[in-house]
Amino acid sequence: MPESNCLQNVAAERLDLFCREALARVGVSTEHSRLTADVLVTTDSWGVFTHGSKLLGGYLNRLKSGGLRTDAEPGVAAEGPAWAIVDGHSVLGQVTSTFAMKKAIELARGAGVAYVGVRNSCHFGAAGYYTSLAAKEGMVGLAMANDRPSVAAPGSRGAITGTNPFSYAVPAGEHDPILLDMAISTVAGGKVYAAHQRGEAIAADWIIGPDGLPTTDGSLYPEKASLAPMSAHKGYGLGLMIESLSAALSGAAMTWSVGSWIFGDASKPTDHGAAFLAMNVAAMGSLEAFQGRIDALIREIHAAPRAHGVDRLYVPGEMEWERRRAALRDGIPLPADVRAALVEVGTGFDIALPWS
Amino acid sequence: MPESNCLQNVAAERLDLFCREALARVGVSTEHSRLTADVLVTTDSWGVFTHGSKLLGGYLNRLKSGGLRTDAEPGVAAEGPAWAIVDGHSVLGQVTSTFAMKKAIELARGAGVAYVGVRNSCHFGAAGYYTSLAAKEGMVGLAMANDRPSVAAPGSRGAITGTNPFSYAVPAGEHDPILLDMAISTVAGGKVYAAHQRGEAIAADWIIGPDGLPTTDGSLYPEKASLAPMSAHKGYGLGLMIESLSAALSGAAMTWSVGSWIFGDASKPTDHGAAFLAMNVAAMGSLEAFQGRIDALIREIHAAPRAHGVDRLYVPGEMEWERRRAALRDGIPLPADVRAALVEVGTGFDIALPWS
Repeated sequence: MPESNCLQNVAAERLDLFCREALARVGVSTEHSRLTADVLVTTDSWGVFTHGSKLLGGYLNRLKSGGLRTDAEPGVAAEGPAWAIVDGHSVLGQVTSTFAMKKAIELARGAGVAYVGVRNSCHFGAAGYYTSLAAKEGMVGLAMANDRPSVAAPGSRGAITGTNPFSYAVPAGEHDPILLDMAISTVAGGKVYAAHQRGEAIAADWIIGPDGLPTTDGSLYPEKASLAPMSAHKGYGLGLMIESLSAALSGAAMTWSVGSWIFGDASKPTDHGAAFLAMNVAAMGSLEAFQGRIDALIREIHAAPRAHGVDRLYVPGEMEWERRRAALRDGIPLPADVRAALVEVGTGFDIALPWS
Repeated sequence: MPESNCLQNVAAERLDLFCREALARVGVSTEHSRLTADVLVTTDSWGVFTHGSKLLGGYLNRLKSGGLRTDAEPGVAAEGPAWAIVDGHSVLGQVTSTFAMKKAIELARGAGVAYVGVRNSCHFGAAGYYTSLAAKEGMVGLAMANDRPSVAAPGSRGAITGTNPFSYAVPAGEHDPILLDMAISTVAGGKVYAAHQRGEAIAADWIIGPDGLPTTDGSLYPEKASLAPMSAHKGYGLGLMIESLSAALSGAAMTWSVGSWIFGDASKPTDHGAAFLAMNVAAMGSLEAFQGRIDALIREIHAAPRAHGVDRLYVPGEMEWERRRAALRDGIPLPADVRAALVEVGTGFDIALPWS
């Protein structure tokens, strides 16, 4: 389609309004809509289109069907000096996760370090949104979540753990925070979908077919294939750490007891788990000195020798922060699959599209 | 050498005595010798021979030359409700790391969760030893350390971060703890040395040559080659998280300021950093319920479908715990390179070898 090459960028504020309006239509409160739209649009502004507003339609479906509640608030089920367990009461995962990371930040102001485990949550989108909240407060943030199994273990025929996303953010001084957001699979499931939707072949190390062997047929995922764990036993091992901290410790559903937020019965809660840690740098020493050390590390990487043909060495998150600055200035270059998903939402609710 | 096939296993107690005796000969206190020998021999009993008693000679060299001190104790430089910063005062990394993890466990008894950052440490051996201490106390343990750069970043010509080991352990009930111990490189540097010493070729994704491209020539490492980061930007990103938590937050040396414990000036401290976290399950809920959930997870993995030809699915650490039980019963099957390293120590100090 030639017109896909001349699609106009979408203003972040208009995309935000669109998301909020759609969420309001299914009964989500003004505050929950605001929180959720900010997660989705921030994610799109980073260029992480697999986890941004493309997901809105799936959330709306669960909200309409009752699997995500509009009449509840996340709450603290138990807490101590440096920890809390949050019950999401099946509201949007973005709302519960923001609440939980803010709770971790608050506890870390007193104790220096805090863990918050979450149960009764749902898909939380991009883990990096929550760790960036900690970095804004001068803290190191960690975030992770479990999910219904879709990733194989070394030697398994079928999935063992979820893609179990993991993120950390570290505040710098003159630079943007270092920010990593990764799945424990070689690639996130969303990338397999997106490549398949675009008609592109997938790499040989992305998925494991029904016989337990690698395949490049993206159409097999997720019904008949599982994602490959990154670096074999290492990705698998990290996946089990995330399962332990996100679900075993918080009391959330584990592995196959987690509902599929997109393919499962939309009237039933998924009971995803999640975990958030905040480490308050200023409580342990000088924040300025710490930021100076991180700035020096970043400068060292930028100045390091590069392989032939490589223009720049990037720090994790650096590309995303640059894309975000461009997006806030010039609009977000939403790809065709995201636009198609938003057209469906706009048509269904008779809401003007954010690029119309 | 045909006799390498009929080498006798070595009793763990005799190997332990040998290590303690050698450490005592260079002035290490009885308690520090006991602590260090236990780390090294436990590591060998897991079959992780790259990080066990093979390293003893290198440590002895630093102890003799003054880069590792025998006349100091690690101490708490600063602490709060859920955190502490430990100064290792350049004693053996195993001593400081055990002290730091025990401090994290003690703090987590009160606060629920605790972080301990370490500075003025040295190479700490196998990270999994320290996390297993937490698991023994019914806590989830995390351990990590920085090191002098030896691992490339995507696009770099030369090393950017250390192998920056990472471990976690999760206590189970009827099973051994889940225990992962990994480097953020595709393989640990010790594996490159060991393969090269054994005359074996190395895999194409293990190291990056002086031009920034992969090579199978193990002799290039470490002078002219760096290790490849696992899963490219993911391993690199995790390496920077470990650098931040182990060194930027604790005030330890970072990247190229860390001394090379094995190739560097043995009379100068290396100032490695490390980080330890303990999460006290019983403070946040029922330890028994948690252990039951982990046991169920392990049983589920053991019962999961396997690819053709695969006999068992292993949980991280399971192979190592089984090897340890066999080693405590039948002796440790020390490979030839470890024996050669111990022969050098035994000859140098005139100590009877543990298999003689």
